[in-house]
Amino acid sequence: MVDILHRVGTTASPEAVYTALTTIDGLAGWWTEKTTEAGDDVIRFRFDRPQGEDGFDMSVLETVPGKLVHWEVVAGPEEWVGTHVRFELKQEDGYTVVLFRHEGWREPVEFMYHCSTKWATFLMSLKELTETGAGRPAPDDVRISNWH
Amino acid sequence: MVDILHRVGTTASPEAVYTALTTIDGLAGWWTEKTTEAGDDVIRFRFDRPQGEDGFDMSVLETVPGKLVHWEVVAGPEEWVGTHVRFELKQEDGYTVVLFRHEGWREPVEFMYHCSTKWATFLMSLKELTETGAGRPAPDDVRISNWH
Repeated sequence: MVDILHRVGTTASPEAVYTALTTIDGLAGWWTEKTTEAGDDVIRFRFDRPQGEDGFDMSVLETVPGKLVHWEVVAGPEEWVGTHVRFELKQEDGYTVVLFRHEGWREPVEFMYHCSTKWATFLMSLKELTETGAGRPAPDDVRISNWH
Repeated sequence: MVDILHRVGTTASPEAVYTALTTIDGLAGWWTEKTTEAGDDVIRFRFDRPQGEDGFDMSVLETVPGKLVHWEVVAGPEEWVGTHVRFELKQEDGYTVVLFRHEGWREPVEFMYHCSTKWATFLMSLKELTETGAGRPAPDDVRISNWH
């Protein structure tokens, strides 16, 4: 099992970051504009691709205001299903630090390399959203390669 | 043992990316302006920090023009020494794809989370350098948190 790890810090409050991670408007402001509730504590994230729409459904397993958001991937690409995504928040030096983990990948496939870099750019988008009010969610996300 | 993985693609040629990974001018154009040769196939990378200068010395273990650059960290922070950094290059859809691995971390310490995100921003700087002629090397690198 292999994990994707990231650490970013934003000058916004833990409450503001938590809101960006737990509300439809917040999530649509940094990850993908196509974010909707799917009932039963599941959030649906969709992306327009040249070959059609795809994306991920996340079951919200645990939330601790200002501290933690923990999802399980319940639908999406085969490599993602059953993996977990965790955002741990803490305060340090006037920053809200986000410790991010996308854990439980079965193999370090090339798609995992891509997702690791892509998560970094989306976490920078979360930082921008909470600091300036405007992130870079899909479809205007940062292009990193031929895989977008 | 845990690894940092990333994947970026640039519209530049494999030769141009290889040059950016194997020459002092190239490396100084995307990672840190303070890049120097230290003899015996060791390259020295330095960064100005509030507490003084620090950085990494990389021993170049293997280079295959247009294909591979492989370093071992021979001096730097304790967590880095003995780890390996690999850039594998390949062509796909008109892009030069860089598969990046910083491998051999003993523990997934918080510093590893930071370095993972920081590597993503530096690889985006490598992409920019090779596509536009201007990257974002230190000291003008992208700030991601209180740890810079």
